[in-house]
Amino acid sequence: MALADLKEEVRNDDGIATAVGILKQRFGDKLQTNASLLEQHSHTTTYIPSQLPDAVVFAESTEDVQQVVRVCAEHKVPVIAFGTGTSLEGGVNAPAGGISIDLLRMNKVLSVNAEDLDVTLQPGVTREDLNIALRDQGLFFPIDPGANASLGGMAATRASGTNAVRYGTMRDNVINLTVVMPDGSVVKTAGRARKSSAGYDLTRLMVGSEGTLGIITELTLRLHGIPENISSGICQFETVEDACNATIMAMQIGLPLARIELLDTPMTDAINQYSNMNMELKPTLMLEFHGTDKGVAEQTEMFGEIAAELGGTPIEWVNTVEERNKLWKARHDAYPAMLAYRPGAQGIATDACVPISRLAECVAETINDVEELNLVAPIVGHVGDGNFHVSPLVMMEDADEVARAETMIERLNMRTIAMEGTCTGEHGIGQGKRRFLKIEHGGGADIMAAIKRSIDPDNIMNPGKVVTLGE
Amino acid sequence: MALADLKEEVRNDDGIATAVGILKQRFGDKLQTNASLLEQHSHTTTYIPSQLPDAVVFAESTEDVQQVVRVCAEHKVPVIAFGTGTSLEGGVNAPAGGISIDLLRMNKVLSVNAEDLDVTLQPGVTREDLNIALRDQGLFFPIDPGANASLGGMAATRASGTNAVRYGTMRDNVINLTVVMPDGSVVKTAGRARKSSAGYDLTRLMVGSEGTLGIITELTLRLHGIPENISSGICQFETVEDACNATIMAMQIGLPLARIELLDTPMTDAINQYSNMNMELKPTLMLEFHGTDKGVAEQTEMFGEIAAELGGTPIEWVNTVEERNKLWKARHDAYPAMLAYRPGAQGIATDACVPISRLAECVAETINDVEELNLVAPIVGHVGDGNFHVSPLVMMEDADEVARAETMIERLNMRTIAMEGTCTGEHGIGQGKRRFLKIEHGGGADIMAAIKRSIDPDNIMNPGKVVTLGE
Repeated sequence: MALADLKEEVRNDDGIATAVGILKQRFGDKLQTNASLLEQHSHTTTYIPSQLPDAVVFAESTEDVQQVVRVCAEHKVPVIAFGTGTSLEGGVNAPAGGISIDLLRMNKVLSVNAEDLDVTLQPGVTREDLNIALRDQGLFFPIDPGANASLGGMAATRASGTNAVRYGTMRDNVINLTVVMPDGSVVKTAGRARKSSAGYDLTRLMVGSEGTLGIITELTLRLHGIPENISSGICQFETVEDACNATIMAMQIGLPLARIELLDTPMTDAINQYSNMNMELKPTLMLEFHGTDKGVAEQTEMFGEIAAELGGTPIEWVNTVEERNKLWKARHDAYPAMLAYRPGAQGIATDACVPISRLAECVAETINDVEELNLVAPIVGHVGDGNFHVSPLVMMEDADEVARAETMIERLNMRTIAMEGTCTGEHGIGQGKRRFLKIEHGGGADIMAAIKRSIDPDNIMNPGKVVTLGE
Repeated sequence: MALADLKEEVRNDDGIATAVGILKQRFGDKLQTNASLLEQHSHTTTYIPSQLPDAVVFAESTEDVQQVVRVCAEHKVPVIAFGTGTSLEGGVNAPAGGISIDLLRMNKVLSVNAEDLDVTLQPGVTREDLNIALRDQGLFFPIDPGANASLGGMAATRASGTNAVRYGTMRDNVINLTVVMPDGSVVKTAGRARKSSAGYDLTRLMVGSEGTLGIITELTLRLHGIPENISSGICQFETVEDACNATIMAMQIGLPLARIELLDTPMTDAINQYSNMNMELKPTLMLEFHGTDKGVAEQTEMFGEIAAELGGTPIEWVNTVEERNKLWKARHDAYPAMLAYRPGAQGIATDACVPISRLAECVAETINDVEELNLVAPIVGHVGDGNFHVSPLVMMEDADEVARAETMIERLNMRTIAMEGTCTGEHGIGQGKRRFLKIEHGGGADIMAAIKRSIDPDNIMNPGKVVTLGE
């Protein structure tokens, strides 16, 4: 077993040379082949080694993307969409070479429909930029993976983050997509109505397809009103299990928490150091409540009772917008904080997500593994969704430690699957989890492969990711 | 143009005879071929004429369904899933004959996971039976089309109803499905975690596929806690436009209405007569608020202010559970109430759904058409979702009236599509709306056809519905 299911795929060298030549003619300086740029465009946030594309095209419009895809379709050359390069599963690697389409120049917010609580934008807009653009209108877009990712990439990965417990994931917040299909045609997946029963749900098929079925060139997203009252704070517990059980109880009584994020003690320590916080070194829940003043007062009272029952501290509130922003910035920086916590180590992302009733048990068994295997592996989690990340910090030159991390991850993924959960709540399959996709979905993985073949018969769209095509 | 896109498809007479013979041997009395039963199993709730299957098999397990599908796959014979027969778009018709699989004997609630707020059940459980089974546990399942439909059928149609404005549709409330695929294999689409990024979203692909990709034999659904406070009432307006504008304003400020249902004056009249109500003959909103006592008090105050601004009456509350049940029973019975309103007429269901900002305009233009074309066509709608049903009550022997109804429906569907809405918010495409699916989705309809071909290459699953395969 290897950490990632990486291999070089067969390269179509002649096709690639021809396609690059044609595209260079068409795109001039918008096509680049210098080594550092190629390296950057296969860069991902994790330990997964780079596999370089042969050229990068900086697309500025749907038509640019169409042109690239048409040439690549004709010459059977891979096309890989690139946003901010923050995939955790090797999503932008080019195992068979090909053309990376950089979409960051497509960064316009095209129209805010405040009346319908939606926005239409290009895929290179990042989540932070979108929220800056919306602020004056009292609206926000809640989905917030740790990185300041592009919204096209977030849709492609079915991303979520800290607010998903209240507002759902990209699955729930994408209204429609414009997609350049593998044959170069452009398809709009839906209109802007709140619901539809018109045929197969192409929007939901494209959300989470990780660029393997087409390239997203425009998105309409659901917006939400900024609540009258936003209250954030932390609540600390004696054990991780108590913190998990407080979360479970809050979810089971239907408390509409906006955020409930677990940090175990090592993660609390790492965040204290990286983000200059001074939390007590204990398992911690970072909390946020959204609503009217009265609504938030009710919610916090109810949560307080649950926490007290489980030995939690009273909620320590942050009192200004600046403090609140600092709290959540610290949470979003958990990944770099972890890396800084063990200098020289690589972080190996995991993404277990289980039914909420199994959360405490799943986390406890995982901590036992970490201890038994003598690993350093802080835990952070969107526990209201049953989703947590335990990230072994591994000295990659220590083969024994790598092997122990592999053992832990194997056990973790098998455990989540056995608990009717998933090996990935929000990161995607990419290259790293294809083996587990097959274990988790069984015959469903074959249906996915059949769909891939029907839509992309020449396998030019982000090959080597998500599905396994009898390779 | 015809009201429904109905035609006989080519029958595989030899295959059908062989399959019926084999299945008769296997299933004995569980397979029936008498005429009235065949008639009943192609019966739909609307004017659409019946197209009979050749036999009905009463399945009692996933294995039964598998056996039928395997035999039908071998002999290339159509298989049509049947629940309560309440499709509004000819969903259970058998245009090329074949086997109807009646799933109503598969009516067990298999497990209620109160801790995870989910339930696993067989497809023949109806929505009312499910809520009776859940009542003791303080939980409910919100999706409520007018009919007491089966949950398998509701998932297949991506149904919704009055609560969708707060709780979403079947798209949002199906966690996973067990599906017998066209080759007889069984696939489970997902686990029970609240979210997943593991590959293509097979659950959402199957929800709304109307039995054309496989037959649902088990479902896990999301449940909700019965709120502390449920308050219902009606609020009446001088014009339909005022009622729509009150709805739009309430949605735009993010009021979490549980139900907001429009009746125009003719519909108010029809419901008064059919359900023995005594609403004033005016455009009416039927309302429901869910929350804590304080939360509901806040919501109703805010809604009251909006309504008053638009000339609405103060909310007339219903004060007992019996009265509340009567109110919503009356709403669910809108369809038979309409039919009784013009004896001898057929009701022709429509299902426009537009972005909320376009609702008032869309309804107003539609009412203009109804008047101009001299039709009787009451309106009822889930207006919080931008979804409304205007149903011409037509004397089918009056060719001129039929033609005028066709004109109205054509204009309605083209209007909703032009407004970035959909021709079907919740009824599905079936046979009746295939032409409009192509207009609405353009190249997307071709992608749907490609998916259909890849999963069901012999087109045995509910042929002649949803997608058009170069027929």
